[in-house]
Amino acid sequence: MNHMLEQLGMHAKDAEVILRNLHTDKKNEVLCAVAGKLTDCAERILEANAVDVENGRKNHMPEGLIDRLMLTRERIDGMAEGLRQISELDDPIGEVTGMKKRPNGLLIGQKRVPLGVIGIIYEARPNVTADAFGLCFKTGNAVILKGGSDAIHSNTAIVECIRETLKESGVTEDAIQLITDTSRETAAEFMKLNQYVDVLIPRGGKGLIKAVVEQSTIPVIETGTGNCHIYVDESADLNMAADIVMNAKTQRVGVCNACESLLVHENVKEAFLPVMAERLRSKHVEMRADEEAKALIPDAKTATEEDWGTEYLDYILSIKVVKSVEEAIAHINRYNTKHSEAIITNDYSHAQKFLDEVDAAAVYVNASTRFTDGFEFGFGAEIGISTQKLHARGPMGLLALTATKYIIYGNGQIRP
Amino acid sequence: MNHMLEQLGMHAKDAEVILRNLHTDKKNEVLCAVAGKLTDCAERILEANAVDVENGRKNHMPEGLIDRLMLTRERIDGMAEGLRQISELDDPIGEVTGMKKRPNGLLIGQKRVPLGVIGIIYEARPNVTADAFGLCFKTGNAVILKGGSDAIHSNTAIVECIRETLKESGVTEDAIQLITDTSRETAAEFMKLNQYVDVLIPRGGKGLIKAVVEQSTIPVIETGTGNCHIYVDESADLNMAADIVMNAKTQRVGVCNACESLLVHENVKEAFLPVMAERLRSKHVEMRADEEAKALIPDAKTATEEDWGTEYLDYILSIKVVKSVEEAIAHINRYNTKHSEAIITNDYSHAQKFLDEVDAAAVYVNASTRFTDGFEFGFGAEIGISTQKLHARGPMGLLALTATKYIIYGNGQIRP
Repeated sequence: MNHMLEQLGMHAKDAEVILRNLHTDKKNEVLCAVAGKLTDCAERILEANAVDVENGRKNHMPEGLIDRLMLTRERIDGMAEGLRQISELDDPIGEVTGMKKRPNGLLIGQKRVPLGVIGIIYEARPNVTADAFGLCFKTGNAVILKGGSDAIHSNTAIVECIRETLKESGVTEDAIQLITDTSRETAAEFMKLNQYVDVLIPRGGKGLIKAVVEQSTIPVIETGTGNCHIYVDESADLNMAADIVMNAKTQRVGVCNACESLLVHENVKEAFLPVMAERLRSKHVEMRADEEAKALIPDAKTATEEDWGTEYLDYILSIKVVKSVEEAIAHINRYNTKHSEAIITNDYSHAQKFLDEVDAAAVYVNASTRFTDGFEFGFGAEIGISTQKLHARGPMGLLALTATKYIIYGNGQIRP
Repeated sequence: MNHMLEQLGMHAKDAEVILRNLHTDKKNEVLCAVAGKLTDCAERILEANAVDVENGRKNHMPEGLIDRLMLTRERIDGMAEGLRQISELDDPIGEVTGMKKRPNGLLIGQKRVPLGVIGIIYEARPNVTADAFGLCFKTGNAVILKGGSDAIHSNTAIVECIRETLKESGVTEDAIQLITDTSRETAAEFMKLNQYVDVLIPRGGKGLIKAVVEQSTIPVIETGTGNCHIYVDESADLNMAADIVMNAKTQRVGVCNACESLLVHENVKEAFLPVMAERLRSKHVEMRADEEAKALIPDAKTATEEDWGTEYLDYILSIKVVKSVEEAIAHINRYNTKHSEAIITNDYSHAQKFLDEVDAAAVYVNASTRFTDGFEFGFGAEIGISTQKLHARGPMGLLALTATKYIIYGNGQIRP
């Protein structure tokens, strides 16, 4: 085994024992101290970040990625503010639920505990570094970070600031560790560090997530893409429908909960599609439609089979006319990525049917898919949006970074 | 992709849609019908099983495995009874929990839903076939089974009976499918069928579980080995301690929740170890002890480093003297397999400390580790005991075979 990774793993395991039973007051105090330190160290972090940005420019990194990579004093303040917000959230660790007395007198309950050691693999966004630390620390987990080579100087500077604060606070520095070797080989070995890492969370694009799911032997929480649909039912309030489609498509296009495909019941296509198309045109949304929809939207392109399965993350919308709520549900379940789906309807049984039968992390009646988000759901934080079914599904708050253990109080019980 | 597996996967996905919303009454009716059918078809199943047993004998299968493989009329009745018991359990599917109104009027709740398609890979125990079907069907999941080649005739006969009953009941036969190609290549391909299978549960020995964890790209629920400890604290009631150790070590030795290692506080070693050793001798338990314990148990062998980490599943017990509850906890956290651990004590703070700091699925005060079991915990069923931290930890009942989805009721909300 890679010696450096093994060392990191052992340090994380030692830290886990300390973090597991840290009092909430102490954790909150440290989170606020780290927030202050980040602001104090802004100069140092910005200098390191300038090196990454310069390297990025030299390597012809696209401007969109440079923007994600670049830190400013405001962005550092934002990272600090994020940590302060996490300090204000309820600590889920230690709660005991469902404690019941068995017929033999055993008292059995479930206690919420940290997962242990969390590995996070991410790309060139240095703000994830502080954010991931905050969420893992609040939930009593040690974290090992593996960021992209493009952000290595920024990440190193941020992690140093955090570790210095941890030391000053008398808490183990190894609550956070950064893998500074950014090679692919090391990443691949990290994904098989089952002995030391309890769960791996990839944060980044499709390619990164796919690589982690395929290569990791450690359990993975998969956060993923969103090919989200809005179905406008026969009984929909068409003004409401148009408002929701505009919001879900254009309020922010590059996000996983944005709408990518519009389904319309055939009985309202004439009343709805020309008006909808006009509003979409005003925001320069490219429309790709099936034959029936195209007949009402002359400037639409023809949608191909590939369009139905595509998450555009752009000002593009696929449009299809369907004969029934059943056809809409079947189409969605065939092409969606199990993220967020909405029906606009005033029909009680169609609403219930859609909620029951659409297979997705979040299913909406008469609301925008853009609400699928940890903050909008009231969790006060978000680690990502899980599109898998195990452990956590949908927006993940602090609870997703915890496990349970059974605690059993007896007075001499033996099994007959 | 393997064409046969792809066909099975597509059939399972079709079945998933039907099973997802099957009413509880119908599911219970089918479970009881399958139970009746298994008894009716006993002759056919026994004939098929006889072929497997004969082949096993030809291939020099050890008698212990032959015993697990062999079916009798009583064992088939037992399988049927198991299905009837599952029919009597509460159906977890459909429950909505934690529904809350957000400040913007959105009503957000979590609905319990099936996982979808569950893959189960198991060894030569044909009773798992009916059992796995019952648990998956009750929770609205389609199941794809991959049993061992040793039990192929038995498994085929049982699955045929179940599928015939499903057909007669008007429910899709594809609620259960068996992979009849028992080659390793097919098993390996099955473990990468992410497109169709939502979770994979290996049921069997260490080797099988390790292979699935390492090869599967589908999320796995790991059930595992138990290197379980009992720590007898200074303040323990020593009679209670001896009763619990005897129960946990000898009531059934081949199971994962049996005790494999005994830790004793040095201040009670003289009062406890000779008496304990005498009782263990009466059941022919081999003792492997550290120097301090050996001084009080002359016939004990010397424990090696390897002993501390070994799950014997046999009449063998390792024994160690420790100086404090802290040393006991550190030793346990170093060598255990995160299964079940117990402290015998009358000291309040030691009991709480042990519950807080020992990292395991089930931590006991003053009770036998043998209680870690779905039935003993009151779940009415058990799929296995999870030793991982994600999704489910400890004994898994029906809930472990479910997921959640967010359902959101709005009235036109868009994201500002």
